[in-house]
Amino acid sequence: MTQTTNPLVFLEALHQEIQQTKYGQQPAELYDPISYIMNLGGKRMRPLLTLMAAYLFGDNWRKALKPAVAVEVFHNFTLMHDDIMDQAPLRRGQPTVHEKWNHNIAILSGDVMLVNAYELLLDVETPYLKKVLARFNRTAAEVCEGQQFDMNFETRWDVSEDEYIEMIKLKTSVLLGFALELGSIIAGADDVESQRLREGGINIGLGFQLKDDLLDVYGDPAKFGKQVGGDIIANKKTFLLIEALQQSGGALKNELIGWLSATEFDKQEKVQAVTAIYDQLGIRQLTEARINDFFTRGFANFEQLSVDPARKALLLDFTEQLIGRES
Amino acid sequence: MTQTTNPLVFLEALHQEIQQTKYGQQPAELYDPISYIMNLGGKRMRPLLTLMAAYLFGDNWRKALKPAVAVEVFHNFTLMHDDIMDQAPLRRGQPTVHEKWNHNIAILSGDVMLVNAYELLLDVETPYLKKVLARFNRTAAEVCEGQQFDMNFETRWDVSEDEYIEMIKLKTSVLLGFALELGSIIAGADDVESQRLREGGINIGLGFQLKDDLLDVYGDPAKFGKQVGGDIIANKKTFLLIEALQQSGGALKNELIGWLSATEFDKQEKVQAVTAIYDQLGIRQLTEARINDFFTRGFANFEQLSVDPARKALLLDFTEQLIGRES
Repeated sequence: MTQTTNPLVFLEALHQEIQQTKYGQQPAELYDPISYIMNLGGKRMRPLLTLMAAYLFGDNWRKALKPAVAVEVFHNFTLMHDDIMDQAPLRRGQPTVHEKWNHNIAILSGDVMLVNAYELLLDVETPYLKKVLARFNRTAAEVCEGQQFDMNFETRWDVSEDEYIEMIKLKTSVLLGFALELGSIIAGADDVESQRLREGGINIGLGFQLKDDLLDVYGDPAKFGKQVGGDIIANKKTFLLIEALQQSGGALKNELIGWLSATEFDKQEKVQAVTAIYDQLGIRQLTEARINDFFTRGFANFEQLSVDPARKALLLDFTEQLIGRES
Repeated sequence: MTQTTNPLVFLEALHQEIQQTKYGQQPAELYDPISYIMNLGGKRMRPLLTLMAAYLFGDNWRKALKPAVAVEVFHNFTLMHDDIMDQAPLRRGQPTVHEKWNHNIAILSGDVMLVNAYELLLDVETPYLKKVLARFNRTAAEVCEGQQFDMNFETRWDVSEDEYIEMIKLKTSVLLGFALELGSIIAGADDVESQRLREGGINIGLGFQLKDDLLDVYGDPAKFGKQVGGDIIANKKTFLLIEALQQSGGALKNELIGWLSATEFDKQEKVQAVTAIYDQLGIRQLTEARINDFFTRGFANFEQLSVDPARKALLLDFTEQLIGRES
């Protein structure tokens, strides 16, 4: 196996497959929101990982196309329902489904999206179908568990680092792990290799989420898509805040709690003050160390794969790009 | 095949299987509502039909137990989400999940219930798995379509009889059809027999739903579990109201529309007045004729099955009991 495919070939094939996918016809209120959210864009990183994982083990990665779209449909189903629960007005700069239509439509369209994801997974060849579905069921349940833990954490001030890592693992990382595992199973990889890809995906996903937390505070406003400090303003329980609550004591902890309890405040002043507390506690360095640790573990998982080096390099390059080591 | 099982054996095995079913552990907020709604009771008619359908084609109906529970879990998932959409405070006399917990928990618990239903279906033996899942996916999507049509109809006054029948077919009847089809597929029945069972289930389901509409107006208050006239008070678009709107004209239609438009009224007076309009139009007889037509078709579908007569009689008896021909 020496043939190396340009990563753009995967992306083009994926875009074409997504455009061809039919979710259903009538009633329009049920199916239009699915096309809408699927066309809001995004990096499509999960289905791309599925295709790249399949390519590691053979040339016929195109048979992973429909299952790859299943992962993307499932991901967008979780976004549609999470946006209701979080009362989010916008998704990728556009109105969320429950805002553009209504709550009931967002619930029901989401439900049928989950069914659509299962239907797309039925494209998996019979010898692999039961295994894929069992792994998907477990992953889907874990994603729901992660979302529930996240909601539970909103009203708790004693969330530990371990609890937080477990929550983001369930809510976001296991799906990256599954996306990779899925591609490898379809391509006939053995369990050891599939497991390595899954573990690698989870580690990369964990680093990815912590980096998101970090960039909210320390990101370059010119590069970061969202308002810097948004999590601080909203008291969002990020890795940084949880660490700061655990690491601080005395006057500094009181100052932090004061900002968290304040109901009226100048937003910029709060962001600056809380960032200063993070700085004093060395939260940035601590978070960066954890991010690097997860990324290093993830790359080590991928390095261990017994596959053609050129194909492995493709996955490693794509992952480097994804995690944006430069920024 | 002459061994005939007492129907209670199915019910006991089913109850035991439901009690043994594990939905998940943590977080409790996610999984407790599933046990709660599954334990609210109900006639369990869908999973019982699955078991009876399997028994028609062989003695090993117990291998249909987990898939039968999958149908019951799916049905209760739809109830959990429908109750949010309908803002229903009570389900079987107990607080609905979104009332007892909250909306977000009802959305997310419902989501994981749908995943649980798929997990239970994975118990189907490999040769039948893909077929069962394809049929389940179609059925699940149809149930969502039916619920969306039902919500669309709330704001329309020109719903035709055909549209209404199609809506209740999707929303409630296809799942009865699938429950029967499922049992037969698992037991190795051929497509012709499975199709007959499915058709029969749909016809019985349609009659069943129209009978529910009828009993709201003409039921015996002592036997009917709900308030007689509740649909009239709420302007619910039932088969009776749709027929009355189509059949009436002139002064009678104006009187009916007057009651539908009234914002302040004596409930008992409205129920009596609308019932009197139905009486004048012969809506009761017309509805009874349609119910009998659907039931007759359903029994004819079942009669055509090429199975052991004693086992067929068991299904026919159970169906008679279910539709309560006596009341």
